Amino acid sequence: MSFQKLDDLGRRLEAFSHALSILGVDEAVAMAVGGGEARAEAMSALAGMQHRQASAPEIADWIDAAEQEDLSDDQRAAVRELKRQYTNLTCLPVEFVEKQMRTRMRCEQLWRDLRAKKDWHSFEPALDGVIQLVREEAAMRADALKLAPYDALVEQYDPGTRVSDIAPVFNDLKSFLVDFVPRALGAQDNRLSKRPMKALSGSYPIERQRELGLAMMQAVGFDLTHGSLAVSHHPFCGGVPTDVRITTRYKTSEFLSSLMGVLHETGHALYEQNLPKEWAHWPLGKARGMAVHESQSLFVEKQIGRNPAFWAWALPVVERHLGEDWSIEDILPHVHHVERGLIRVDADEVTYPLHIILRFELEQDLVSGKLQTRDLPEAWDAKMQDYLGLSTIDSPGDGPMQDVHWPSGALGYFPSYSLGAMMAAQQWTSIAAAVPDIEADLSAGEFSRINAWRRDNIWSQGSRWSTPELMQRATGAALDATHFKRHLEARYG
Amino acid sequence: MSFQKLDDLGRRLEAFSHALSILGVDEAVAMAVGGGEARAEAMSALAGMQHRQASAPEIADWIDAAEQEDLSDDQRAAVRELKRQYTNLTCLPVEFVEKQMRTRMRCEQLWRDLRAKKDWHSFEPALDGVIQLVREEAAMRADALKLAPYDALVEQYDPGTRVSDIAPVFNDLKSFLVDFVPRALGAQDNRLSKRPMKALSGSYPIERQRELGLAMMQAVGFDLTHGSLAVSHHPFCGGVPTDVRITTRYKTSEFLSSLMGVLHETGHALYEQNLPKEWAHWPLGKARGMAVHESQSLFVEKQIGRNPAFWAWALPVVERHLGEDWSIEDILPHVHHVERGLIRVDADEVTYPLHIILRFELEQDLVSGKLQTRDLPEAWDAKMQDYLGLSTIDSPGDGPMQDVHWPSGALGYFPSYSLGAMMAAQQWTSIAAAVPDIEADLSAGEFSRINAWRRDNIWSQGSRWSTPELMQRATGAALDATHFKRHLEARYG
Ligand SMILES: [Zn+2]
Ligand SMILES: [Zn+2]
Repeated sequence: MSFQKLDDLGRRLEAFSHALSILGVDEAVAMAVGGGEARAEAMSALAGMQHRQASAPEIADWIDAAEQEDLSDDQRAAVRELKRQYTNLTCLPVEFVEKQMRTRMRCEQLWRDLRAKKDWHSFEPALDGVIQLVREEAAMRADALKLAPYDALVEQYDPGTRVSDIAPVFNDLKSFLVDFVPRALGAQDNRLSKRPMKALSGSYPIERQRELGLAMMQAVGFDLTHGSLAVSHHPFCGGVPTDVRITTRYKTSEFLSSLMGVLHETGHALYEQNLPKEWAHWPLGKARGMAVHESQSLFVEKQIGRNPAFWAWALPVVERHLGEDWSIEDILPHVHHVERGLIRVDADEVTYPLHIILRFELEQDLVSGKLQTRDLPEAWDAKMQDYLGLSTIDSPGDGPMQDVHWPSGALGYFPSYSLGAMMAAQQWTSIAAAVPDIEADLSAGEFSRINAWRRDNIWSQGSRWSTPELMQRATGAALDATHFKRHLEARYG
Repeated sequence: MSFQKLDDLGRRLEAFSHALSILGVDEAVAMAVGGGEARAEAMSALAGMQHRQASAPEIADWIDAAEQEDLSDDQRAAVRELKRQYTNLTCLPVEFVEKQMRTRMRCEQLWRDLRAKKDWHSFEPALDGVIQLVREEAAMRADALKLAPYDALVEQYDPGTRVSDIAPVFNDLKSFLVDFVPRALGAQDNRLSKRPMKALSGSYPIERQRELGLAMMQAVGFDLTHGSLAVSHHPFCGGVPTDVRITTRYKTSEFLSSLMGVLHETGHALYEQNLPKEWAHWPLGKARGMAVHESQSLFVEKQIGRNPAFWAWALPVVERHLGEDWSIEDILPHVHHVERGLIRVDADEVTYPLHIILRFELEQDLVSGKLQTRDLPEAWDAKMQDYLGLSTIDSPGDGPMQDVHWPSGALGYFPSYSLGAMMAAQQWTSIAAAVPDIEADLSAGEFSRINAWRRDNIWSQGSRWSTPELMQRATGAALDATHFKRHLEARYG
């Protein structure tokens, strides 16, 4: 039976994925500095073997045959999703993939060096090499997937989502934000003039912050028998669904950034821990994509973790661990701080989408060829001035050299961040409609009704539906900026 | 070129080994409790793929062809050692290996449960199943390797060593120890009657013990850029040569057991860190076997770490970390404590070999069929009474149910421990002859001359020679109990 062959294949591929995930976590958390070269060799050999096994030509026959077999609905969905993945995996020639890998790796290495030196001039040719290959990739994927080139890239990160879904909601949000950012900043000034910001600085031992993080993780639903919290330079959520590893980093002078980071990664972790176990070794059993994943992390970090009702419960927990005595009025100005800035990863939830929309617009033009790599600094600066009133023309390190995504060839990825933020707001609206008095749950540190909705509508669905279908089924409507705009109005207006 | 094919194969197999090593360390050190099932599945799938690739029939042709190629001496040694490994890997039918695996795993699980309950009666049939298959395995390996059955088992753990090498030195050592143990105990009583033992008990924070362990590791040569120290329930040395992971466990009431354990694992680690890097992906570049490995750990733990000269340097280091004030006369009675006991892993270096010789004698008879599994408790008890004057007839949990080795089918392994102890003593003799005033180095915390000898004669040799050849080349003589006996006389007589 061909379905069984695919199931066996899935278990072999899953063994590689499991190893690569844990090796990745180990590299960030436990590896000795001198272990990197052998680790990179081992991981690239394993990834190569996995790729060869996942793209073997006989799999096409197995898929064809399995589609003719008498399968359950679940099995049919599993084959459908596997086929989608197989098509995406095999539509680029092996030599092209290898050339692209080398070009990207060289560009990433250059980026690490030249970004710090703000040397756009030396960096540009390498980035242009990556962009050229991205255009080729987009054309080949477009051909295989019967999609427009940029859509074919977005499909890699957020299956089913098209520019025609994204552009209207981003345009809606953009015109809202261009007015709303100054309004939110004005409201903040106004509040601060009445009650100046109280610094939360102090001395918070790492062990206490860690205990606080663990307490929060558990409270919002993280299963500590299937995961843990460690330290790494860049916080992440990794590991495998049966053992989800989240990391953070600590400053002893300040606790809020680590705590909010832990809540963010806990959102990712809840998704992973609650995926359908019986399909763990099939694409069907994996998380749907980057946008949905980010909707889950932002749901915990922003919808829950920056909600004033949440802080009614959280503040005493924080105080119990850190031994301080704050009022909710001391905390909220930090949790809701808004500031125009050049750097995406430092942005708050109000200004963040403008960073994304800028990149979304530029990368479409890069892929289509309307914009050339050499013209990026001016194009970036023009939009930055338009959207946030800031200039980057003299600091390319804070402009088009800011993120690793483009040097590593990941065009089509950026929209996921803000799509996720809007999806989280729309999910919150649906939960609030379905679960009476939801904010009272937050104030009581009670997350089971919220998580039940998310488990039923998001987590347990794995990759059964495209992203737009998933949203439609979960919230009864297509993605719409309204909910996110209302959320910002209520919190920052 | 066939040699190149074998080199490529080695890199693929090494990627699996790397992953399996790190996954094993991660399981013991970092894995969430609920992660075990998926981890076991992933590791067994990876091990299965590695085994299939390592035993592929075409490899035999590549080896034959490579032997005809124009190779360097190193390359010729590499092919020779690969061929040895390939023969050992392929001489058992796949179905037999799978049956054996299932039988062993069931017996190990039973052992974990029944040992605690001291239930020999329920355990015996499962162990007998394992023993029956070991006899079959020994017969098949004997046939393929042209060795006696038990020698063919020893060959798996200690290549090149035969019963005809082991039995004379073990017999020599046994007749020495039967007299010497009472003598050493008497001498100890005599010393204690003059100066009673001072307890080292106190309260030693884990973080300070950890710093002490790291300081000692580094001092004796451990490279912290290629390895680290962590915590696990059972201490071990794992990881890969570029990133050696050693573990320990701590009691806050006592520091010596953790520290001596760290020194032991550091001995294993030094061997791994100093293997020939250019052959890391060939059997030639691996450690020679269990006996040589144990000689390296026992060299650090016993020859160095329990030498009074070492403590002249180590005691101030300990005091600096733990803030206590002891005299060398307070410490040495603990470091040199001798006691007759039932449990091998708790035994000191004087009584330990008797535990091993007992097992060596019994397992030869088990393999030959002269001894039946059901008669083990009586046979064990008889030897235990003879060698150590203790009876286990009423406590099979402390008798033939004591170790995991037999339930897991590892017959032929036990001799390695005491062969290692004797090899370490013989190596020490050679170093002392080659390096003038060697004990002064210990008292000065200076290990570079000692390590230079070990690097040249042991570590850098990888698997180039059989164990007896390695000892002959390193020390100029075959293994001989004399050095170990002299060592015990000097320290405990
Ligand atoms: Zn995230
Ligand atoms: Zn050992």
